[in-house]
Amino acid sequence: MSTGLTDEVLASFASTPDQRLRTILERVVVHLHELVREVEPTVAEWETAIGFLADVGAMCDDTRQEFILLSDVLGVSSLVETLNGSPEGTESTVLGPFHMTSSPARELGDSIDDVGGGRRALVTGRVVDPAGRPVPGAEIDVWQCTEDGFYDVQQPDVQPAGNGRGLFHADDEGRFRFRTVVPAHYPIPTDGPVGALLGTTGRHPYRPAHVHLLVSSPGFETLTTHLFVKGSPYLVQDAVFAVKPDLVVDFVEVDQVTEGMDRPYRHADVEIVLVPASSDVR
Amino acid sequence: MSTGLTDEVLASFASTPDQRLRTILERVVVHLHELVREVEPTVAEWETAIGFLADVGAMCDDTRQEFILLSDVLGVSSLVETLNGSPEGTESTVLGPFHMTSSPARELGDSIDDVGGGRRALVTGRVVDPAGRPVPGAEIDVWQCTEDGFYDVQQPDVQPAGNGRGLFHADDEGRFRFRTVVPAHYPIPTDGPVGALLGTTGRHPYRPAHVHLLVSSPGFETLTTHLFVKGSPYLVQDAVFAVKPDLVVDFVEVDQVTEGMDRPYRHADVEIVLVPASSDVR
Repeated sequence: MSTGLTDEVLASFASTPDQRLRTILERVVVHLHELVREVEPTVAEWETAIGFLADVGAMCDDTRQEFILLSDVLGVSSLVETLNGSPEGTESTVLGPFHMTSSPARELGDSIDDVGGGRRALVTGRVVDPAGRPVPGAEIDVWQCTEDGFYDVQQPDVQPAGNGRGLFHADDEGRFRFRTVVPAHYPIPTDGPVGALLGTTGRHPYRPAHVHLLVSSPGFETLTTHLFVKGSPYLVQDAVFAVKPDLVVDFVEVDQVTEGMDRPYRHADVEIVLVPASSDVR
Repeated sequence: MSTGLTDEVLASFASTPDQRLRTILERVVVHLHELVREVEPTVAEWETAIGFLADVGAMCDDTRQEFILLSDVLGVSSLVETLNGSPEGTESTVLGPFHMTSSPARELGDSIDDVGGGRRALVTGRVVDPAGRPVPGAEIDVWQCTEDGFYDVQQPDVQPAGNGRGLFHADDEGRFRFRTVVPAHYPIPTDGPVGALLGTTGRHPYRPAHVHLLVSSPGFETLTTHLFVKGSPYLVQDAVFAVKPDLVVDFVEVDQVTEGMDRPYRHADVEIVLVPASSDVR
């Protein structure tokens, strides 16, 4: 069969004023058509695909982003983040579907745990540039699940909004610190079509324990990353393919009264390297 | 950059019990990852894509299928139908987004126009097999817009449900006939994200005038096709790439009192060729 139809569709985008958008749509069309020609879906299979996408859409609301979850379990999110990372900076990884509410502003040293329970932890760190110079005042947005493996938005009746979240600003030497609980490994939400897909394909839904970090400062590329808890299950087979060895951090057990923490607690210390904003603005 | 991530995602589907599903998902992953590596979307572009898909999903309900519309304007629907067609039978084309309600059962010769107005038309035809033998009792599901270019589900306050639709059964000689009005060319719905996409890319939303036909009979492949009105605008540049020259039919003006029609009226006569059901059941 000729590729006349594909050419006709490509030609229909010839008048797109935004050249970047035109390029993206052209590549989308080429790959969609190649995919269809390769797998030759029956009409029933095409209808199943349409129905699946509609179901994914129906699952999205203010606190649930099932399309991000789909992008995650297909490795697309991790690929996009990896391509946008820089070898000079801390590795980036997926945003995930739970960064949809603003994190409450908190002071350095504050706890992001508003409910209590779990193993107490202290996270300290420093935001620097590739030369090791501090990035004073860098914004650090953090979010994580409870020791039970749920984000605040998943348990509106149990957790107050903002639990497990905090928006911090590094001090003049780029340093930051906050108190929390050690997050748990947890299953991504399986009550929607993405969970059903994992079930049908025999895949498990688990993610290793992690704290999300979104770090930004004027003049630097914004960094989306995780801090994975060393020793957590599923570090080898993350359901969303987001683990990078350099992002795994030891939450060291401390059994002394230090840092203003009750003993015992876990202490994770990290260095975050931001890279200068690229001039390659598309 | 290595393809390690892609391999990891492909490996995750290795235990899929349904081999057909596994094959489809593997090809989806390969093409999605190739697309991402080619266009290297920024995180903001990826977020725009996720937001677009969620918006498409939010537009879907019982009477609106925006994902079918998206598939249509990207030429995917037309490609799937074409690949599923047989050179021995009448050409197939897109289902479109408006076949979501059941058509009311009607008797041969009945009118599918329950509101009046427009140019009266008579559609007659015969359903045959590739050897020209009649397919008695074949089911013919038809749906079309009014002379104003709207389907019943688009105007629930103006058109009674089922207007422009009819479910017929051919007689013992495979013949069918129904009365209607000549459909109009019309824009696909532009009040959703797909319409916005057409606007942003400088594409028009129009489809040439047509009557939808879904023809089935036990032992034959179901045929999804159109009957395009010869002379209609946009036959050359259908917004959903569904036109095939053989499907364009002359609605001949008749100025005689014949066939039980008030004069003058338009008469379209078609032969529908169904092909025997393939034993290639996947």
